[in-house]
This record gives sequence, structure tokens and C-alpha cells, in this order.
Amino acid sequence: MIAATPTPPYYAVIFTSQRRDGDQGYAETAARMLERAQRQPGFLGVESAREDGLGITVSYWESEAAIRAWREDLQHSAARERGRADWYGAFTARIARVERDYGFTQAETSGSANPLR
Amino acid sequence: MIAATPTPPYYAVIFTSQRRDGDQGYAETAARMLERAQRQPGFLGVESAREDGLGITVSYWESEAAIRAWREDLQHSAARERGRADWYGAFTARIARVERDYGFTQAETSGSANPLR
Repeated sequence: MIAATPTPPYYAVIFTSQRRDGDQGYAETAARMLERAQRQPGFLGVESAREDGLGITVSYWESEAAIRAWREDLQHSAARERGRADWYGAFTARIARVERDYGFTQAETSGSANPLR
Repeated sequence: MIAATPTPPYYAVIFTSQRRDGDQGYAETAARMLERAQRQPGFLGVESAREDGLGITVSYWESEAAIRAWREDLQHSAARERGRADWYGAFTARIARVERDYGFTQAETSGSANPLR
């Protein structure tokens, strides 16, 4: 689902990964981490897709402080260690400040796809 | 493939979309636009995945001016019109400044996944 984010500025963590073969507990942990992230202060939404082994997950946050707090969450830190040890062949995480956005939904001829605006 | 981007800062366009049913020339145009984007000044790389109808394409650029020039490219503008008319049920495009990044590859215990650094 396209995340319903507020008016910029806000922050995005673009996490791109190549999975190794086999689940090794990945799906269960990923679901638990998503649930946990959604309860973090400053979490705005997430979008995720994986195709041919390449996964892109973009999470949106109110501030860099919110990203830092989620990074320091102990269960999240433990999951990150499993990521390096068992799940990912490679990943890159990029922290970015969203400056502007625009959107489209089929019902409209122009304007924002965002139901919050 | 994970894009090999340079040291930040640089810019990202996070394009999240829901496709309508049917191809309607989408695949051919998407391949042509990717090839054209790769020849644009300031293009740094692209990552793309689609799953269950949700697509995420993140393109990376040296500057906001490079993004603007690609936005104003006439063939790209024509393709964008087809996007609204024929291909997408909804999309959101977010323009963001990448402030920092970090990565991992299986061969390393830490450090950058980025072969350029």
C-alpha cells in the first residue's frame, strides 16, 4: 500500500537488500519488527516490495531523532544482527529528508494521492 | 541490483505506484524510459521492485537540477501522461535528499556495501 504521509518535510529510510536463500526465521522476525516499528513514536508509514531477490523497504519518520530511537531499540538491534549473520547477502540503508512530494489517484485528474491532504 | 551511489549528499526520487490490470504498452515504455534516464546528466542509479501490484522505484541523482531536467524531458513527459491515463491506479513521488548511508556485504563484517567506496 502507498503510505499516507503528511506534508513534507519528513524523513525516509530507504533500505535495499539482497536476500540469501532460505527463510531462517526471516518472515517471522520481519513481521514482528514491522509491528514494533508501527508503535514507535514518529513512525509515519512504510512501503515494501521484493522481486527476484531484490527488496526495497522505505519507512517514513517525523524526524531524525525518531529514526535514531528506532535504530537503538534493543529488539530491532538484535534483528539487525541476524540480518547480517543469516538473511542478507548485501544491503544499503539510506537516510533521506523528503523535501516535496506529489501524487495521483485514478479518480482525480491531478493533485495528491494522499488521503491525509 | 543495489545501486552503487557516491558519498552523500545526493538526491533520491522515491516513486511508489499501484498498477492497473493489463500491460497496455507499459513494459516497453518503462524499459525505454530506464534506458533514457541512464543517459541523463546527473543520473546515479536506480533500484526497482514490484510485488502484489505495489511497485517501488528509487532513482538517484546528483542534484535537484538533474531531477528537474529529467522531469522536463519531452519523452519522459509523454510517458508520464500515459502513466496517469493508462497504467497507474495511484502513485506518489517523493523527492528526497540523501543525508547519509551505510551498508553491508556478506564478505565484510562491517562497512560499506558500495563498491565505489
